[in-house]
Amino acid sequence: MRVALLSGGSGGAKLARGLLEVVGPDRLTVVANTGDDAELHGVHVSPDPDLVTYRLADTIDERGYGIRGDTWEVMDALEAAGRPVWFRLGDRDLAMCLIRTELLAAGERLTDAHAAVVRAAGVSARVLPMSDAPVRTHVTARGRTLPFQEFMVAERAPGPVDRVEYTGIDQARPTPEALLAIAAADVVVIGPSNPVVSIGPILALPGMREALARARAPVVAVSPFVGGRVLKGPTALFCEHAGIPLEAAGLPDAYPGLLDGVVADEPLSGLPARMADTLMSSLERQRRVATVTLDFAASLTAARPDSA
Amino acid sequence: MRVALLSGGSGGAKLARGLLEVVGPDRLTVVANTGDDAELHGVHVSPDPDLVTYRLADTIDERGYGIRGDTWEVMDALEAAGRPVWFRLGDRDLAMCLIRTELLAAGERLTDAHAAVVRAAGVSARVLPMSDAPVRTHVTARGRTLPFQEFMVAERAPGPVDRVEYTGIDQARPTPEALLAIAAADVVVIGPSNPVVSIGPILALPGMREALARARAPVVAVSPFVGGRVLKGPTALFCEHAGIPLEAAGLPDAYPGLLDGVVADEPLSGLPARMADTLMSSLERQRRVATVTLDFAASLTAARPDSA
Repeated sequence: MRVALLSGGSGGAKLARGLLEVVGPDRLTVVANTGDDAELHGVHVSPDPDLVTYRLADTIDERGYGIRGDTWEVMDALEAAGRPVWFRLGDRDLAMCLIRTELLAAGERLTDAHAAVVRAAGVSARVLPMSDAPVRTHVTARGRTLPFQEFMVAERAPGPVDRVEYTGIDQARPTPEALLAIAAADVVVIGPSNPVVSIGPILALPGMREALARARAPVVAVSPFVGGRVLKGPTALFCEHAGIPLEAAGLPDAYPGLLDGVVADEPLSGLPARMADTLMSSLERQRRVATVTLDFAASLTAARPDSA
Repeated sequence: MRVALLSGGSGGAKLARGLLEVVGPDRLTVVANTGDDAELHGVHVSPDPDLVTYRLADTIDERGYGIRGDTWEVMDALEAAGRPVWFRLGDRDLAMCLIRTELLAAGERLTDAHAAVVRAAGVSARVLPMSDAPVRTHVTARGRTLPFQEFMVAERAPGPVDRVEYTGIDQARPTPEALLAIAAADVVVIGPSNPVVSIGPILALPGMREALARARAPVVAVSPFVGGRVLKGPTALFCEHAGIPLEAAGLPDAYPGLLDGVVADEPLSGLPARMADTLMSSLERQRRVATVTLDFAASLTAARPDSA
């Protein structure tokens, strides 16, 4: 089965790793959120595409971001020079950003620049930025509007959130590669990532909802809610702002009109659903959630009137 | 005495260090060649301004370039990723380039971006890029035309040199800060740097020769030739191309109409000259050459008809 996965950086990245295990690199395309991208320390940082890439390369840090065993020589030098280093990039992580930055400066598209990072990481699956145009998520809270990374990392996400804006979204479009992957997929998976700030920007791209509606494949969401909670703190903050309850039952409303089914660890009504343990704390668990998701999608396809 | 020093990265940088010792940071301004600048690894590299800065900060590497005790994590990561790393930047050196690159990307002038590097290095003297506009020295040799760093570092300077071009020079101008430093100086020193590729671009800036001619201070060149030789191999290559003999006697022709005097370790006719040991292999020697140069300049000023 050819899989197109819409993903943020954490839960979605883990599911990507599980899918890689099940379908192999040739059949996996990840369309990753770039709303968290930022220009920091003079380089173009793409947190979500990079985390997916490092997860697929099995080089991800124990903390779930950055590269395992990385060093901090450059950040230490910047700090010693009195520069703001609230966003700390390891040296190898920075090297990947330099590759991307150099190619962007040479006029290449973000898609091609990130493809070089993916190659550099030794990953054969495709990890596509959702758009080549800049989209920057901004968060308004407590009277201040900040770029996403600054809100999350420098300010440590002081809620409640009053407003989330995807700056630049009106001028942005999904990349041809992303649209092709969705059109050609046997299943489109919406990963267990933050529905507001990770999946939200992808779906808000002009033309993306239409592309998903046109896709011949079923669209299946894997719930980011595990045991009635979210695994990462800020997701709750943004769901609260968006009025999304922290349970799988909220997903059809979070993704209105888009879903053919949901994989979750709790029952759900109104949409086809598959119950499964969705905790992905190990590669084995990631593989298992991927298998359940693909099996569920296959059953949805088989049940379609036109599938005979 | 207020000193304005025109400088490349090696001999000129050493003289800058000696001058710093003698006149202190408040009276020293270095105008550094940016014809060697390059965009590499996604960052803006300014070899000559940086080497002067590191020399003034006493952090320069034993090899005479880069920062002492630097590490190579990022370059190693780029190399492991299969990227070209013929130009190797240490991690701390890279951090300085990131500071400059970030500020340039934010729309600041190269002058202000490099000033941040100078501050970061803890240097109080001014190290000014010669121009805020891009000037890129290109070298033609053996039928190929290459940017300077690529010719020197990647190709290891395969002579003979057929042509040297300062691309962008016609659109470039000296910075207001550089012009002011020259106008306000009590002595303008042309450092013992490569006359063709280090001092050449500075003098070729439209308006620079006029500014030097207008300066009330004497213009004194310190010879880059020591014991009838050049200390750095490529200088010979470029002098040969430009028809400049490797001796102090060639300097008046190399800098036609510009000089009021020459400091050299060999006798010279036709221009006021001061003989001195110009080898600057230690801080003490750098200080001594600086002292001789300033003393010589003072004698030239005193001898002027209008100085009484």
